[in-house]
Amino acid sequence: MPELRKDPIIGRWVIIATERARRPDQFSGKQDEVSAKEGSCPFCSGSESQTPPEIYAVRKPNTQKNTPGWELRVVPSISPFLRIEGELDRRGDGLYDLMNGVGAHEIIIETDQHIANMSDLGEEQIARVLKCYSDRLIDLEKDKRFKYVLIFKNYGEGAGGGSLKHSRSQLIATPVNPKRVKEELSGAKEYFNYHERCIFCDLIRQEIEQKDRIVLDLDGFIAIAPFAARFPFEVWILPKKHCADFTFQDPESLRYLSKVMKIVLSKLKKGLNDPPYNYVIHTAPFRRQKAGYWKTVDQDYHWHIEIMPRLTRVAGFEWGTGFYICPLPPENAAAFLRGVEI
Amino acid sequence: MPELRKDPIIGRWVIIATERARRPDQFSGKQDEVSAKEGSCPFCSGSESQTPPEIYAVRKPNTQKNTPGWELRVVPSISPFLRIEGELDRRGDGLYDLMNGVGAHEIIIETDQHIANMSDLGEEQIARVLKCYSDRLIDLEKDKRFKYVLIFKNYGEGAGGGSLKHSRSQLIATPVNPKRVKEELSGAKEYFNYHERCIFCDLIRQEIEQKDRIVLDLDGFIAIAPFAARFPFEVWILPKKHCADFTFQDPESLRYLSKVMKIVLSKLKKGLNDPPYNYVIHTAPFRRQKAGYWKTVDQDYHWHIEIMPRLTRVAGFEWGTGFYICPLPPENAAAFLRGVEI
Repeated sequence: MPELRKDPIIGRWVIIATERARRPDQFSGKQDEVSAKEGSCPFCSGSESQTPPEIYAVRKPNTQKNTPGWELRVVPSISPFLRIEGELDRRGDGLYDLMNGVGAHEIIIETDQHIANMSDLGEEQIARVLKCYSDRLIDLEKDKRFKYVLIFKNYGEGAGGGSLKHSRSQLIATPVNPKRVKEELSGAKEYFNYHERCIFCDLIRQEIEQKDRIVLDLDGFIAIAPFAARFPFEVWILPKKHCADFTFQDPESLRYLSKVMKIVLSKLKKGLNDPPYNYVIHTAPFRRQKAGYWKTVDQDYHWHIEIMPRLTRVAGFEWGTGFYICPLPPENAAAFLRGVEI
Repeated sequence: MPELRKDPIIGRWVIIATERARRPDQFSGKQDEVSAKEGSCPFCSGSESQTPPEIYAVRKPNTQKNTPGWELRVVPSISPFLRIEGELDRRGDGLYDLMNGVGAHEIIIETDQHIANMSDLGEEQIARVLKCYSDRLIDLEKDKRFKYVLIFKNYGEGAGGGSLKHSRSQLIATPVNPKRVKEELSGAKEYFNYHERCIFCDLIRQEIEQKDRIVLDLDGFIAIAPFAARFPFEVWILPKKHCADFTFQDPESLRYLSKVMKIVLSKLKKGLNDPPYNYVIHTAPFRRQKAGYWKTVDQDYHWHIEIMPRLTRVAGFEWGTGFYICPLPPENAAAFLRGVEI
């Protein structure tokens, strides 16, 4: 059973993934979440038997589960970081805290075609992916053991996406709130307590006024190079209208968002020679109404997507210090991306 | 002038390194802090003119500055992230905070020989490096603009260390305390307030009792695989006797530490096939006596070194979430490293 362990000094939880553990001599510098057989892709139409049974799918009428005829498919990871079965059993060990690694780890296969980059999917297909994110969030919230679902994408080997070139995202449902999300929630709450306004809404207002960090402003969404960017060409996408929870977006707005995603990802691909990238969705945590601390989260928090191209290795000491060095001003990155014709 | 910018939501400072900025089309995935001429190393004896003039050196008697005859040499980075000249000029821009990128960025050239890995230096040479860290910390504290000095090492291309195979470390003096250090200081303080004991001292006591995460326990220092390790084979080295500030260690204890460093780094090199790695030194911040918040830091904080081999790319989404997944239990890592014969 994997374990969730808490750093006693700074309170950060980590997953100690015992079931994925390899022998110490097997660390080769790569980790694929699937080991594709030579010449076959387990995520393509016709290879359904190579994955665990599907949890969710968008299918053509009259097609059977786990057979071709799907347009999007969600399956459990074959080497999950966390296990769906069992109780948390939170406990101490001297000054340490730990619990069982209970959670969900799912792969969202975004197309039945062997297409690598999400930017090459159609807008309709991307809209289906976004709708699926929303549906999975709603479904997983029902499991009382989970506090948060992280939706993320690792594209390309340099971003931890492995060598298999089939467009997919992942989600991990966790029994604890991730540190970065908690920090955002507290920061946003503190600002709200003082100003009685959402900090993200204020930030959007200032970006629209200042213009120079805007990558795209379209159909109710804004894509910006953030003021304190950690990475060159980091881009955040936010809904312009206040919204704390990704699942509150209606289907129409998700179609608009898919257009914005396609444009931004296409600009990154074309302008930067198809770089590896990660993105994460930050949304409000589950069951926040019951958690006194987050009573105001629907007012003070604002969901968003953070896209991080992985172009530099300058992150040498960032992991140890939390101090990021970004070698390109976000204003230059935004101007460059605005100019990329797609 | 580079800028220090603060993320308005979570309060993290980043360096926007305008002077190192390349054109957006120049992001190739590598960044060397020096661009070595073909076949020559600017850090070797005889190449002193290829670096800026030295700030500090350990030299044979009767040798001239910036000429051969040295055993260790500190020079400013030729492409510094921060500039030594100027005032901070902290200011706002709407809801954003920024200041001039004032600071120091120095390269500690650890040997005049073209040796790549610190583990291949002699114990005496490593002791000189540690003594130099301490001396530079004491010297830089005199500059009232600086709050902290980060000492770190990027070894190997996979750790941001570039392609130049000459053993060196770096330091960056910053006018703000790095987020990760602040988190440690607060966590340690909170524990001390409750228990009236140093959390690191308690942690060392528990590790010695439990034994299974100990890599080495020698001459007053302990090397452990931390309970909530972020990375496979992550190792922390701590002085067993309480000490908040690296500069408080006497020369004798630094010689003992150099032995421990050499053994740990040699085990990593031999056991894991010379992996890239980073290390950082976490020590108490400057002028803490004057900062009310950190009044007790000499009692509640405990300096240490965190060594992070860079073996996996599993860090795909860690940057966006603060959630780490470690694919190897630290107990297994420690057992493996204990067993590596050097």
